[in-house]
Amino acid sequence: MAAGRAPIPISNGVGEPDTDQPVVQARMALTLYGGARSRASMPRWYMEEKGIPYTWQLLDMEAGEHRQEAFTAINPFAKVPALVDDDPALPGGRLQLFESGAILLYLAERYGGECQNAAERGLAQQWVLFANATLATALFVPSNREREFPRLMEVLDRKLGEGPLMGNSWSVADCAVNAYLAYLPIFFPQIDLSPFPQVQATIAATQQRPAYQHVMGQR
Amino acid sequence: MAAGRAPIPISNGVGEPDTDQPVVQARMALTLYGGARSRASMPRWYMEEKGIPYTWQLLDMEAGEHRQEAFTAINPFAKVPALVDDDPALPGGRLQLFESGAILLYLAERYGGECQNAAERGLAQQWVLFANATLATALFVPSNREREFPRLMEVLDRKLGEGPLMGNSWSVADCAVNAYLAYLPIFFPQIDLSPFPQVQATIAATQQRPAYQHVMGQR
Repeated sequence: MAAGRAPIPISNGVGEPDTDQPVVQARMALTLYGGARSRASMPRWYMEEKGIPYTWQLLDMEAGEHRQEAFTAINPFAKVPALVDDDPALPGGRLQLFESGAILLYLAERYGGECQNAAERGLAQQWVLFANATLATALFVPSNREREFPRLMEVLDRKLGEGPLMGNSWSVADCAVNAYLAYLPIFFPQIDLSPFPQVQATIAATQQRPAYQHVMGQR
Repeated sequence: MAAGRAPIPISNGVGEPDTDQPVVQARMALTLYGGARSRASMPRWYMEEKGIPYTWQLLDMEAGEHRQEAFTAINPFAKVPALVDDDPALPGGRLQLFESGAILLYLAERYGGECQNAAERGLAQQWVLFANATLATALFVPSNREREFPRLMEVLDRKLGEGPLMGNSWSVADCAVNAYLAYLPIFFPQIDLSPFPQVQATIAATQQRPAYQHVMGQR
């Protein structure tokens, strides 16, 4: 979990191994691939909050490292983040996943102690899709931003006032939605959030979380 | 599964019950709420393919039925589709879900005999998020359409040539991605798909499936 590029040598050919360090890939089950300022920060935040050990593999996107075969063997769409879980208990001993939301949901179930039945998984999937699909479309499709975005925010503001999105404590659902909300002042500083005080409070509370600060400080 | 509005009376206040018909809500576990030409067609297609019984509740969106309290009690964001699963085995005897992708994943696991372990769920989540988040953003964000969309299609075209997206038969992953692809000629007729023959073949094969035809014929 050290900062910077390839802190721990890995065996799958992305980046040059640093032969001064021992190869520990065999006992590190999880490897997360991401780029600077990429959506990898969402699953990273989750792993930091939950204390899940992982190897962080920062790709040099400007140099096109994500388009090299070593990475497209993991995600053929050449997009980050991607997760590799090396575990003899898995079919074939390995799972390769892309899509930040899918990575988050997998981590929550397999390593975060969440999503332990179909109903819990259903609700977690609902909030992750809400964040990555509905909120994203409302924000990034210009024609939606004026009408659709305030509607979503109005309802979300009420919902956030009731506490965590699922159950009684911070969960994968809060991670997905709040990571997205915390992007707002960064990517859309022109949007006035003052009509949505609970959204503003949630963003402020997110920015205060040590695990969030740790990950975002490394972006 | 009859066509039209409120084929079976329901007890939760959306629409007027038809007192000429017996109330069968108690033994119909699943109720799907949607609008004409809405994303409800994706989970409907899945349930028709898998022979999962459900009650179809068509809301009159033009009359604002989705904004009435009877429906916002199910989805506060007033968006369709939404699913209600009434089942004494569920916590509280009921699960209410929104987000077409989350509904699809829940159906696959609980009623479709799919997604029976964390690895399978991970991959299913990956493809559903790919469809609803990544493909959607590439298409609907104008600045992405020229550059990002052909990149995705090029890789997807190769992938589709290898057979079903997960395992050896049609699955929830194919449902999500292929439903999206089949929208392309409808919503983006100006996009030339001839460089992507497997995408074209997949759209044609989807249009030939009786369950797909059945649902789309009722849109």
